[in-house]
Amino acid sequence: MHQSPDASPSANADEQQGHALAGAITNGVHRLRLRVYYEDTDFSGIVYHANYLRYCERGRSDCLRLIGIDQSRLHREEGGLAFAVRRMEIDFRRPALMDDVLDVETRIIETGGASLTMDQAVMRAGEFLVGARVAVACIRDGRPARIPASLREALAGMLAGSGKG
Amino acid sequence: MHQSPDASPSANADEQQGHALAGAITNGVHRLRLRVYYEDTDFSGIVYHANYLRYCERGRSDCLRLIGIDQSRLHREEGGLAFAVRRMEIDFRRPALMDDVLDVETRIIETGGASLTMDQAVMRAGEFLVGARVAVACIRDGRPARIPASLREALAGMLAGSGKG
Amino acid sequence: MHQSPDASPSANADEQQGHALAGAITNGVHRLRLRVYYEDTDFSGIVYHANYLRYCERGRSDCLRLIGIDQSRLHREEGGLAFAVRRMEIDFRRPALMDDVLDVETRIIETGGASLTMDQAVMRAGEFLVGARVAVACIRDGRPARIPASLREALAGMLAGSGKG
Amino acid sequence: MHQSPDASPSANADEQQGHALAGAITNGVHRLRLRVYYEDTDFSGIVYHANYLRYCERGRSDCLRLIGIDQSRLHREEGGLAFAVRRMEIDFRRPALMDDVLDVETRIIETGGASLTMDQAVMRAGEFLVGARVAVACIRDGRPARIPASLREALAGMLAGSGKG
Repeated sequence: MHQSPDASPSANADEQQGHALAGAITNGVHRLRLRVYYEDTDFSGIVYHANYLRYCERGRSDCLRLIGIDQSRLHREEGGLAFAVRRMEIDFRRPALMDDVLDVETRIIETGGASLTMDQAVMRAGEFLVGARVAVACIRDGRPARIPASLREALAGMLAGSGKG
Repeated sequence: MHQSPDASPSANADEQQGHALAGAITNGVHRLRLRVYYEDTDFSGIVYHANYLRYCERGRSDCLRLIGIDQSRLHREEGGLAFAVRRMEIDFRRPALMDDVLDVETRIIETGGASLTMDQAVMRAGEFLVGARVAVACIRDGRPARIPASLREALAGMLAGSGKG
Repeated sequence: MHQSPDASPSANADEQQGHALAGAITNGVHRLRLRVYYEDTDFSGIVYHANYLRYCERGRSDCLRLIGIDQSRLHREEGGLAFAVRRMEIDFRRPALMDDVLDVETRIIETGGASLTMDQAVMRAGEFLVGARVAVACIRDGRPARIPASLREALAGMLAGSGKG
Repeated sequence: MHQSPDASPSANADEQQGHALAGAITNGVHRLRLRVYYEDTDFSGIVYHANYLRYCERGRSDCLRLIGIDQSRLHREEGGLAFAVRRMEIDFRRPALMDDVLDVETRIIETGGASLTMDQAVMRAGEFLVGARVAVACIRDGRPARIPASLREALAGMLAGSGKG
C-alpha cells in the first residue's frame, strides 16, 4: 500500500524536469539548494558546525556529478579510485537556522595531477554564512593516484568556466 | 510556489520554479525526492539504517510545511509546542546505495487530540525499500499538548485527501 | 582486556585498565555507557530521535565485540558477511538531554539460523528512556546467510546467560 | 570522579571507577578515547571526513567539562552563553577505520577576552591521523560575549599546564 504502481515513473514530466536535484552550474559556479532539517541543528538552536561539511560535500558530489564524474562508479570500476579531502579551512561567519533554505556554491580553483582545490560558500538568500577552502586528493588504496585524463578534461572545463564567472 | 521568487537573487527563474524543495502532495500522499550522499552510507557499502529515519523526518517536516505547519514558528510562538516521535515500527527491506535517488512518501492515517499517526515509505524508482509507521505526539514542556484547532483542520484536509488516493 | 596494554603509548596503565570502552556483560545483559554531546541534540533542546538508533547500534556492536564477534573482520574475511537490521520497534518514552550520561542495555532474546533478535534499552541513572526490539539478519551479497557455527555458539552463550539474569 | 557513585544503580563499583567517560587531563593535554562505529564510516570504507569534527567537539566538550565548565548549564543560566566555533583548519593525514580505538588530544593554546584557540589531534595508537586548529568564540544572542572571569581562570589553569607538557 505504500506505493502506487507507477510511483516514480509516475511523477509527471514537469516534476521530472523541474527537479534539478543535483543543482546547476552557471558561469563556473555550481549551486545546490538545500533545506535545514531537525537533524542538522543542535540544542543551542543553530546548525551544528560539522554539518556545514556535510552540506559542502553534497555540493562537491553534485558538482562532480554534473560535469560527468560518477564517484560510486569510479570507486567500483577504477579499482577503488576515490576523492579524499586532505585539508579544509572553514570560516563560520553566521549561523543557519532550522527550516532555512541554503545555497551551497562550489568553485574549482585549481587542478593538479592528483589533486584539486575548491572554494565553497554556504549562502542564505545571498547572505554569506560559511566559507570553505577544500583540498581534495585523488587516491587509490590510500595512496595518491593520477586523475584519469577524461576527468581532468571535465574539471578543466569548469575551471575555465570559472574564469568567466 | 514553495519559495518566493526572490528567495535567492542568484538563482534564475527556471531554477526557482523547478526546485520543489519541499516535495509535493498528490491525492493525500506527500512525496519528497532526495539523493544519497557519502554521509548517508557506511563501510558495508549501503545506507546506514538510522539514516532512513532522517529521511523520514525530512518527509514529515516537508509534508507539514506544505499543509501550512511551520515547526520552528510553532516552537517559537506557541510556548515551545513541538511534534515528538513516540513510537516507530520500521521495516528495512532492501538497501539504498550511494548516489541513489529516493522518494520518501508520507501519509497521515490518523489524527487524535494530541497525536497523529503517519505511514512512510522510502522508494527507489517505484521499488519499496523501507517502510515506517510513526506515532507522533504534540507536546509542550515535555507533556502532551492539544493540537491547535487550525493545525487539526490542516491535518484533516490531508487525511481526507488520503482517502481518495 | 579489550585493548592491548600498548594500544596508546601515551595513556598510563591505570587509564588503560579503567577504560572499559566496549562496556561489560553481566548476567546476560550488555551495558555500554555513553555521553550526550552537541552532535546528538536538535534545536528543540533534546536528543534527535534517530540518534537513539546510533546509540543502540554502538551497544549491539560492542556486545558482539565482547562475545568475540569482530564485524569488520567478518566483513573482510568471510566474503562480505554482515549483520543487517531487518526490523525495529522503538518506544521513545522520555527524552535525553545535552551532557546526559546514558547506559545502553542489550539483551539477545532469540537466535535463528540466519537471524537474531535483541532487546535494547537506553537508560539514564536507572530511568527508562527509550526501548527497542531489533531483528537482525546475517547477510552476504544482500542475501540471508547462515550464521557461522562459531558465532552461533558465542551468541548462545549470552542467550543462556540472559536466562540467569 | 567524573560521575557520582550512584549515577547508575545498575553498574557496580568497579565499572563506576573505571569509566573515565570524560577522558583525562595530563600536563596540559586533554585525552578522550573513543571507538569508531558503523555510523562514523562511509561506503569508501573509512571514517567520513566530517565525523572527525564530531570527535573533536567531543574532546573540547569533555576538556571544558573537566576544567569545570558545564556548557548546558552555561547556556541555561547565563542567558544563552555559548561557545561557537569561528574557524577551523583541518589536516586529514591518514584515515581511521571501522572498530578503531582513537584518542582525541586537546590543547588550549591561547585565550582572549571573548575567544580561545585550541589545537586538537586525532591519534590511533600514537599515530597522528587528523589535526585541527580551532578558534572558538564566546557568544550570547549571536554576538561576542566576554568570557566570565571564573571561566577564564579555569582556562588559564590548563593553558599554564600546557606550558609544562
